[in-house]
Amino acid sequence: MENCRVIFKPSNKEVSVPKGTDLLTAASKAGIYIYNVCGGEGLCGKCKVKVLKGKILSEPTRVLSEKEIKEGYALACQCDVESDATIEIPEESVIEKPAIVIEEVYTPAEKIEKPAILKGERKFHHGPLVTKHYFQLPKPTAEDNISDLDRLYREINKIVTVPVMQMGVANVRRLGKLLRESDWKVTATLGKRDGTVEIVLIEPGDTTKKNYGIAVDVGTTTVVAYLVDLNTEETVAASASYNRQSMFGEDVITRIVYAGEPGGLENLHEAIVGTINDLIRNAVKESNVSISDINAVVAAGNTTMTHILLMIPPDDIRKEPYVPAVSSVPVIRAAETGIKVNPRGLLKCLPGVASYVGGDVTAGVLSTGIDKTSELSLLIDLGTNGELALGNKEWLVCCACSAGPAFEGVGIKSGIRAMDGAIQRMTIENKKGDDFDVQYSTIGDKKPKGICGSGFIDLIAELLKAGAIDRQGKITKAGSARIRKDQESGSMEFVVAFAKETSTNKDIAIAETDILNLIRSKGAVYMGIHVLLQHVGFKFEDLKKIYISGGLGTYLDTEKAIMIGLLPDLPVERFLFVGNSSIAGAKKCLVSNQALKEADEIAKRMTYFELSTDPKFMNEYTSTLFLPHTDLELFPSVKKVLGK
Amino acid sequence: MENCRVIFKPSNKEVSVPKGTDLLTAASKAGIYIYNVCGGEGLCGKCKVKVLKGKILSEPTRVLSEKEIKEGYALACQCDVESDATIEIPEESVIEKPAIVIEEVYTPAEKIEKPAILKGERKFHHGPLVTKHYFQLPKPTAEDNISDLDRLYREINKIVTVPVMQMGVANVRRLGKLLRESDWKVTATLGKRDGTVEIVLIEPGDTTKKNYGIAVDVGTTTVVAYLVDLNTEETVAASASYNRQSMFGEDVITRIVYAGEPGGLENLHEAIVGTINDLIRNAVKESNVSISDINAVVAAGNTTMTHILLMIPPDDIRKEPYVPAVSSVPVIRAAETGIKVNPRGLLKCLPGVASYVGGDVTAGVLSTGIDKTSELSLLIDLGTNGELALGNKEWLVCCACSAGPAFEGVGIKSGIRAMDGAIQRMTIENKKGDDFDVQYSTIGDKKPKGICGSGFIDLIAELLKAGAIDRQGKITKAGSARIRKDQESGSMEFVVAFAKETSTNKDIAIAETDILNLIRSKGAVYMGIHVLLQHVGFKFEDLKKIYISGGLGTYLDTEKAIMIGLLPDLPVERFLFVGNSSIAGAKKCLVSNQALKEADEIAKRMTYFELSTDPKFMNEYTSTLFLPHTDLELFPSVKKVLGK
Repeated sequence: MENCRVIFKPSNKEVSVPKGTDLLTAASKAGIYIYNVCGGEGLCGKCKVKVLKGKILSEPTRVLSEKEIKEGYALACQCDVESDATIEIPEESVIEKPAIVIEEVYTPAEKIEKPAILKGERKFHHGPLVTKHYFQLPKPTAEDNISDLDRLYREINKIVTVPVMQMGVANVRRLGKLLRESDWKVTATLGKRDGTVEIVLIEPGDTTKKNYGIAVDVGTTTVVAYLVDLNTEETVAASASYNRQSMFGEDVITRIVYAGEPGGLENLHEAIVGTINDLIRNAVKESNVSISDINAVVAAGNTTMTHILLMIPPDDIRKEPYVPAVSSVPVIRAAETGIKVNPRGLLKCLPGVASYVGGDVTAGVLSTGIDKTSELSLLIDLGTNGELALGNKEWLVCCACSAGPAFEGVGIKSGIRAMDGAIQRMTIENKKGDDFDVQYSTIGDKKPKGICGSGFIDLIAELLKAGAIDRQGKITKAGSARIRKDQESGSMEFVVAFAKETSTNKDIAIAETDILNLIRSKGAVYMGIHVLLQHVGFKFEDLKKIYISGGLGTYLDTEKAIMIGLLPDLPVERFLFVGNSSIAGAKKCLVSNQALKEADEIAKRMTYFELSTDPKFMNEYTSTLFLPHTDLELFPSVKKVLGK
Repeated sequence: MENCRVIFKPSNKEVSVPKGTDLLTAASKAGIYIYNVCGGEGLCGKCKVKVLKGKILSEPTRVLSEKEIKEGYALACQCDVESDATIEIPEESVIEKPAIVIEEVYTPAEKIEKPAILKGERKFHHGPLVTKHYFQLPKPTAEDNISDLDRLYREINKIVTVPVMQMGVANVRRLGKLLRESDWKVTATLGKRDGTVEIVLIEPGDTTKKNYGIAVDVGTTTVVAYLVDLNTEETVAASASYNRQSMFGEDVITRIVYAGEPGGLENLHEAIVGTINDLIRNAVKESNVSISDINAVVAAGNTTMTHILLMIPPDDIRKEPYVPAVSSVPVIRAAETGIKVNPRGLLKCLPGVASYVGGDVTAGVLSTGIDKTSELSLLIDLGTNGELALGNKEWLVCCACSAGPAFEGVGIKSGIRAMDGAIQRMTIENKKGDDFDVQYSTIGDKKPKGICGSGFIDLIAELLKAGAIDRQGKITKAGSARIRKDQESGSMEFVVAFAKETSTNKDIAIAETDILNLIRSKGAVYMGIHVLLQHVGFKFEDLKKIYISGGLGTYLDTEKAIMIGLLPDLPVERFLFVGNSSIAGAKKCLVSNQALKEADEIAKRMTYFELSTDPKFMNEYTSTLFLPHTDLELFPSVKKVLGK
C-alpha cells in the first residue's frame, strides 16, 4: 500500500502512514494526542486542524463555519490523507500533559497522601504485594539431598507461614542452574495471590534492596502513576498524563460503545496500556530504577477502565441492569495485560462495587478511612463522572451521579482540563455602568487558554453574585461589553478574557447553554448526595466529614461550590480536600496486604444504589436546576450573600 | 538449502529433508523409529540400515563387518543424506509398537487394574482432578446486579466449599458474552490445583457428560496412555508406544547427557510430548471422544522423564549427591508442556522421592497399597531400571538398583523389547549326544525375531538346569550344534533359534558376554532387596508380599526368576504380578483426589537409600554374580533342582 508522509506543525513531528489513514490516527502515531470528545463522529469539533499542504479527503461537516473551511480548517477525525501533507494543529486541539501537583513528586508518600485530618488515623502494617527474601541455602549432601525446589521451600517456610505455595514451571526450569551458579545464595520474590503465595521470581545473590512497585490511578481522563520503593514505602517518582483513550471518546459511555466495534476493545486496551507504560518509562528514567526490579502493579480505576485494562469486554456495563463482567479481579501477571514491568510481576486491580462505582472509589474509601470511622462521612469523587460513598464503620453505601465531564472542562466551549493556562480561580465585580471587572488566575501563571472545572464553579458563583445571571442561569445584563450574542449559536455569552489577553488569540467566554449544562452537572451531584442520605435516613446536617477527591478537588473553592449548589450548605470546616484518593488508596494496597484485604472488604460491604432508575432522584432532580436550588432555605449562607 | 527426498523400504514412507540430515532423523520424520541404544554415537550398531540408492556420506565404523559394508549396510546415526535416496530398514532395526496386554483395552478400569489380591482393598473416593458442574444462573435484575463472575462464584459456592478459588483472565474475558449467549446456562469445569480450585473452563449449556482425562505412564522405553471417562472412571481407550526419545539413547543416563548438549533438552522434550500426543490422538480416534473434552492429564514417570516432560534440565540427577530440580511438581496447564488436550486442561505429574525413584514408583506404591498394609511388603518395578519400595503402613523406604536395561532386552545381542515375535518363554532339554532341544513361545505367536526380558530369564535358568552353562554363567558344553564361537566377537554363544526358523533370517543366539551382563543385572536387583531389608533390620523371610510390576512382570516365570537368583527363594504364592502399576496409580490419581493426596503423602513419607555409594551394597555385590548366588544355601529350592 502507498504511504504518505505527514508533517505536523508547529512541533514538526513527522510520520509515514498508509494512504487513507485519518488524521486523528496519523497524529497519534506521531505522538500527538488530539481532543476527540465525540469518539470520531465529527460532532464535537474539538479535533480541529488546519491543512497547510497536501491532498486531504474530508467529509462534509456543519461543525466548522464556511470561513474556517475556506481557511483550510478541517476535523482530524473526518479527514483521510491522500498525499504527503503538512498539517497545523492549533494549541487548543492538543491534549497536553496534565498539571499534577508538583509537590507530590519526589516526596515521601506519607507527606503527600495523608491529609492533615487523617494523620495517625490510617496506619496499615507494612506488607507489600510482593516481598523479597535473601536465602543462603545449605548445599546438598548425600545425607541432605532433597530436590532443589524442596530445599528452597524449606528455607521459605522458616520465615513465612504459607497455606498454599505456588510456583510456575518457568521458574522451576531455571532453578537448578541458578542455584548452582549463584553458589546457593539467592533472593526469592514472593507474591500474594488471592490467599496463596507464589514464588514470583528467583534471582542470584542478594537483590532484596531492589524491590519496586507501581501504583496507578487509571482515570477516564488522566492517568497517574507512582513508582514506589516497596521496602521503604517511599514514592521515588510520580508521573501523570492524559489517558490516550481520549482519542476514542471522552467519557466512559462513548468508550464502551467504541469497545463494541470490531477492533475497538483492542484499540482502547492498547491505548491505556501504552499510557501506563509511558508513565512507567518516565518514572524509571527519572529515578534510575531498573524496570526489571518492578515486581508489582496495583491499579485503581473505574469499572470500565478496569475492564478495558484487562481487555474484558465492558459491553454490559451500560445495558440495564448494568452488570459488569467482574468486580473483584483476581491477581494476574502484569504481562498478561501488556504492562511492561518484570515479565513475572503481578497486577492487582482494586475491586469495584458496581458498573459505575469502581476500584477508584474503593481506594478512596480506604484512603480516607470512612469505613473505620464512627462519624457519618461522605466521599465525593469528582472525576469525569461523580461518585459518592457514604457511611461509617457500621455500613457503607454508594452511588454514581451522572454529572458528566463538565467539571473536567469537557464538552464546554472554552472548557479545558486542569493544565497550564487553565483559568482556575476568578472574581467578578459589577462595576458601574453595567460593566464587569474580571480577575482570574491560571494554572502555572500562563496566559489563559481556557477554563477548567474549578474556574467554571468560580465563574458561575461570581456571575450569580454579580447579578450577571439569574438563579436559573440565564444571562440578564445585556448591554455590558462582556455580554453579547454568539454569532453562530445565537446563544448569549459572557466573555471572561478577550482575545488580546489569551494564548489562543481567541476570546474565552461562557455561553448560556454551557451554564445550563454545568447547572445540570452540579444538580446531579447534589441530588446524588441527597438521595443517598435519604436512602439511609439521614440529612445533610448529619454529615460530619465530606471528603472531596478528584482532579477538581485540588483547586476547588468550597464556598463557591456551595454558592452554586454543588455542595450542601454546611460549615466549610467539614469539607476536606484529599487530592487523588484513588492513587493514594492504590499505593496503600501496594505496600500493605492489610490495606488490600480491607479494600476487598470495603468493596464487599458497600451497597450500591442505582440512581438512574431511582424515582426519588427523578422526582426532585428539577429542583436542583436552580442556583443554588429552588428552595433557598436549604442554602442559608447563600441566601445571605445574595441578600434575599 | 537443498532438500533430498528419502524413500524408506519396505514401508515406502517418503520424506523430504535438508541435504546433510542424518538418516536417524530422516527416518523419525517419516514416522519410523529406529533403535539407537548408544545415543547416536555409532557404537551399538542397532540402527543398521541398507542403502539401496543415492549418495550417503557415512562415517567409518567398526561395528559393521566388511561384508556388510560391501552389501550397502550402514549405521543410520552415522550417515548423512547427500542426494535423493532409497533406504531399506531391516525389521530388527525398527522400534515397533509394544505389545500391550490387549485385554486392558476397552475394559473398565476396575477389571484390568486391580490384581485379584487387592480387590476390595484399595478404594478411593470418586473425585477427579477436574470436575464439571452445570449451572442455571438466575438472570441479573436491578435488585440482583452483582458482576457476572460473582454470580458464577455464588452458584459454585453453593455446591463446593472452596478455600481459594482462582480463574484466569482469559476466562473472564469470555464470560459476559458466554453467559448471555447461553441464556445463563453454563457448565463450569473446576480443577484442583495444589490446595486451590481453579475455574478451568466455562462452556455454554450442559456438557457435564463430556469430561475426560488422560493417565499416562511415561516410561523410559515405553509410554502408555489411558483415556478415562472422569464421570464413570471407565478406561474408554488405551494406547501404547515406544518412547520416541529412544532415538537419543536407551537409558536415562544417556538421555541426561544428551539433554546437556545444545538443543538436546528441547529435542528430548519434543520427542516425549510427540509420543504422548500420538497416543492421545490414537485414543480419541478409537473412542470418538473430542480432544477438547479432555481436561486433565496425570503423568507418572521416573524423575528424569518427569523433568524432561516439563522441560526442566535434568543435569544434576546424575551428579553427586544426585539432586533433582523438583520432586513434588505443581499442577500446571498441560499446554505449558505442549501436550495437546483442551488448551486450559491441567497436568499433574506424580511426585517422586529422589533422583532415581520417581512418580512411577509413588504410583506403584499407591496402586498396590503397600503404604496402608500391616504386612511387610515389597514392590519391585522392573523397567529400564529397577526400583524397589519396601514397607507397610508405619514406614516406607526405597532405592534404585542400577540393573540397567538388560531385562528390557536392550543392550543384548538378540535382545528385543516385549513385542510381537519376541521369545518370552523357553524350555531347554539336554538330549543325548550333547545336543539340546529348545522349545519356545513368542508374543503374538509370530515367527521369532529376538528374545525379550522374560525370555532371557527363562533361557538362563534353562541353560543352567540343562547344564549348558555353569554357575558363573560360562558356556560349558562345547561340541553341541547350538554352542559355538561367534566369528566376530570370539565369544562363545548358544543358538536359541536358527535362521531358518526366524523372521529375520538370522540366528537368534545368546553370547557368554550377554549372560554375564544379565547376571550383573539380576545381581543388582537381588542385592538391592537384600540391602534395603538390612537397612531396616529385616530378612527375606519377613517379606509377606512381593509385588512385581513393569513390562517384565507380565510374562515373568517366578520359579525361573528364583532359579537365576533375580528373586529371593520364597514361596511362589508370595509373589504377585501387578502389571503396569505406574499407570494404574496415575489413573487412580486422575479420578480420585483422595488418591492424589495419598500419593503426595507417600512421596513425602518414603525414605530413599542411595545404593551406588552404599558400602553394604559394594561389599556383597560380587557374591550375587553367581547363579543363583555364591551361597547356594540361600536358594534351597534351586539347590534341589540342581541336585546339589
